[in-house]
Amino acid sequence: MKFKEQHIISMREFSREMIDHILDAAEKMEPIAHGKQKSDLLAGKVLAVLFFEPSTRTRMSFETAMLRLGGDVLNLGSVDASSIAKGETLADTIRVVDGYVDAIVLRHPKEGAAQLASEFAKVPILNAGDGAGHHPTQTLLDLYTIRRESHLDGLKIALAGDLKYGRTVHSLCYALSLYGAQITLISPKELRMPDEIISDIIARGAKIIETDSIEDAINDVDVLYMTRIQKERFPDPAEYQKVANKLKITIETLKDVKPELKIMHPLPRVNEIDTKIDDTPHACYFKQAFYGVPVRMALLGLVLGAIE
Amino acid sequence: MKFKEQHIISMREFSREMIDHILDAAEKMEPIAHGKQKSDLLAGKVLAVLFFEPSTRTRMSFETAMLRLGGDVLNLGSVDASSIAKGETLADTIRVVDGYVDAIVLRHPKEGAAQLASEFAKVPILNAGDGAGHHPTQTLLDLYTIRRESHLDGLKIALAGDLKYGRTVHSLCYALSLYGAQITLISPKELRMPDEIISDIIARGAKIIETDSIEDAINDVDVLYMTRIQKERFPDPAEYQKVANKLKITIETLKDVKPELKIMHPLPRVNEIDTKIDDTPHACYFKQAFYGVPVRMALLGLVLGAIE
Amino acid sequence: MKFKEQHIISMREFSREMIDHILDAAEKMEPIAHGKQKSDLLAGKVLAVLFFEPSTRTRMSFETAMLRLGGDVLNLGSVDASSIAKGETLADTIRVVDGYVDAIVLRHPKEGAAQLASEFAKVPILNAGDGAGHHPTQTLLDLYTIRRESHLDGLKIALAGDLKYGRTVHSLCYALSLYGAQITLISPKELRMPDEIISDIIARGAKIIETDSIEDAINDVDVLYMTRIQKERFPDPAEYQKVANKLKITIETLKDVKPELKIMHPLPRVNEIDTKIDDTPHACYFKQAFYGVPVRMALLGLVLGAIE
Repeated sequence: MKFKEQHIISMREFSREMIDHILDAAEKMEPIAHGKQKSDLLAGKVLAVLFFEPSTRTRMSFETAMLRLGGDVLNLGSVDASSIAKGETLADTIRVVDGYVDAIVLRHPKEGAAQLASEFAKVPILNAGDGAGHHPTQTLLDLYTIRRESHLDGLKIALAGDLKYGRTVHSLCYALSLYGAQITLISPKELRMPDEIISDIIARGAKIIETDSIEDAINDVDVLYMTRIQKERFPDPAEYQKVANKLKITIETLKDVKPELKIMHPLPRVNEIDTKIDDTPHACYFKQAFYGVPVRMALLGLVLGAIE
Repeated sequence: MKFKEQHIISMREFSREMIDHILDAAEKMEPIAHGKQKSDLLAGKVLAVLFFEPSTRTRMSFETAMLRLGGDVLNLGSVDASSIAKGETLADTIRVVDGYVDAIVLRHPKEGAAQLASEFAKVPILNAGDGAGHHPTQTLLDLYTIRRESHLDGLKIALAGDLKYGRTVHSLCYALSLYGAQITLISPKELRMPDEIISDIIARGAKIIETDSIEDAINDVDVLYMTRIQKERFPDPAEYQKVANKLKITIETLKDVKPELKIMHPLPRVNEIDTKIDDTPHACYFKQAFYGVPVRMALLGLVLGAIE
Repeated sequence: MKFKEQHIISMREFSREMIDHILDAAEKMEPIAHGKQKSDLLAGKVLAVLFFEPSTRTRMSFETAMLRLGGDVLNLGSVDASSIAKGETLADTIRVVDGYVDAIVLRHPKEGAAQLASEFAKVPILNAGDGAGHHPTQTLLDLYTIRRESHLDGLKIALAGDLKYGRTVHSLCYALSLYGAQITLISPKELRMPDEIISDIIARGAKIIETDSIEDAINDVDVLYMTRIQKERFPDPAEYQKVANKLKITIETLKDVKPELKIMHPLPRVNEIDTKIDDTPHACYFKQAFYGVPVRMALLGLVLGAIE
């Protein structure tokens, strides 16, 4: 499998075999990610971190991954403070930064930005989210979390929240369909997953159940994947409130779940998950955030050719 | 003495023995802080720097300390650009960052923030200022400066400026009381040190003198510690001007001082200290800023278990 | 030649011999700049990057240069977030940072800032642009680009755009005059190079031709150096548009040029150079941006005494 010098733009490019390969590599990175083992795998390498919109978690875990592997990080800094304010195109910015570094992590509000960047870069581009487009490293860390904390084969998972606009859940469903997962979609009707995506993932091997209530689904699944619902999606604040209240979980909600149920969330959460749940063995969202580090280490090691 | 994996939240936790231990460790760090000696004491370690309000000096000296010891730094960046803008709680941010790094330096505008953070973090929290609360590394570097440039035993020190709200001077007085210092408090009546703090530090061993004029005290002391007076404390700008003028020093003010008098200031200064004083042997404030580096090196080395 | 511990403030200080020495050193740095060779030439050294106005390209290439040589970078961060907001003078900021690091890169909107800083710093100051003042590392990378991609001796170069306010082109002309270059100045009459600069550079050995049309000059030169024209210079937008249109180049403009013509631009460009030119062998501006890295490596190595 050849990852060296490849761009990482979208999960759609990845076969199950490729995903498994990355997750295997991530597993080997865990002791380094925990700071228990030193590494200079990427010593002398420089990673540019170009975030055209903020995303603390993604940026920090990429930077940690690079630093823990002995590499260095070059940060574009806030976009207001950059020459983009002087009207430079993304293509020009990429061609310049390309000359400075060994790989580029790009976050951009516009769909297609990472693809465009990859056409102008000689070094690998790692897409860290391009608007309504893709966010492959989030999906990979979600898959890694499921594999480490639950299991990918024969998985029963429920996804709750905004399934219409949520890029994260779309991508995850595409990937899980490769493993033949049973996926329960939980959302208010206004935020249902688009029919074309549902058809697609069924065609790829997933089994789909739809509902609008967490209670209907939670007792049967191995993993519950919660997401935020954005107020801005609702013209009427009262409507938002009603929907948001329905898609919250508390200790009460968990009274009949499987003992091994794992609850995930891409974070930041607002109030979808009561903080009392944090201390239960079901809570898995902080571990999930941590798993971003070994997964991004694996990707950096692969595209920079330091591991196979 | 066990510092490994301990949080550093407030000076109140420290005995004189513990302070002396840290200052001894700082002294050994000086050649590294000066860049005269290389170190990889903290190689492979990552320090997160979470500043929820700006403080250039404190942040830069922590980062320098980490870098000069061979470690790496992960910066939260400006808070506007972070997921805090999306409504994440401090507890959640800490639990996520905790998974990425080996220690966290936290600056936060709210009193008690560092204490709260320490309850959610598995890695050591170093409080770099929490609003009206504590700022222990500032106090330690102040003590270190006094020890290096003057002496702690039998010290006569005068503190001038805003002694009512000044967190820095309160903390320093508590610490100096452990050494039985004679402390002259110089402030306008509006900005007197609160009576309860004065009683406390007397009870702990300090001798206190109060006055409202620098001239009354300056000829008798070993150290003069100046601070800024903030305009915002005064409803009437004319009143501020009058008070501020009284708490300024010039070359003239120094004409009868001890030859070994040292003048300190936590910086930034506005106009409390005339720049002509900078070239006299009394000026000690830039050295004081530098001493932040070896002191923070010592603390990082101790809490990360790299030194004893 | 002694560069160790020297400040780099302005090109005016440099003889031809000194420039050649720096460019020779840069050439040796190229394999490291390309990431093909590891270096720990500056291991244990810390560079402060103080940018009081944004300049992504300059900052990033300085940081890359430092990192690729094994050194570390300490960033002031955005100026709003710094104690400068609390009213600290540049002199005080420099004296504090001076205690933390081994060298300081300074970008400042005010002319003379770097000179002022050098009077207060014990470590070397590298001027990365001081308003209408100097920007010596830009000139050095321009010279390096010309030497690497064309030739400095017997050079015929045309400079197009805003030659009145353009600090970059003034500095470059002074430097090129040391090599006896033939310089064609192309600008609208409103943006002509000031007569006193023209007299100066003729006196120093340059041959000068003036015109207002790129077409008049382009077929005869080895290098065409394009610059941006700033809208703000023109009270009347229609006038700006007319002038800007005349100082644009397209594939058409290049039909009769020398095959070895190289086109340079300090970037960011707006629309002075049609992107179709990017794929021709004439396009040299992205390489030019890259060459900032080896040139800045050479300067850092020299002033820090790591190379001679």
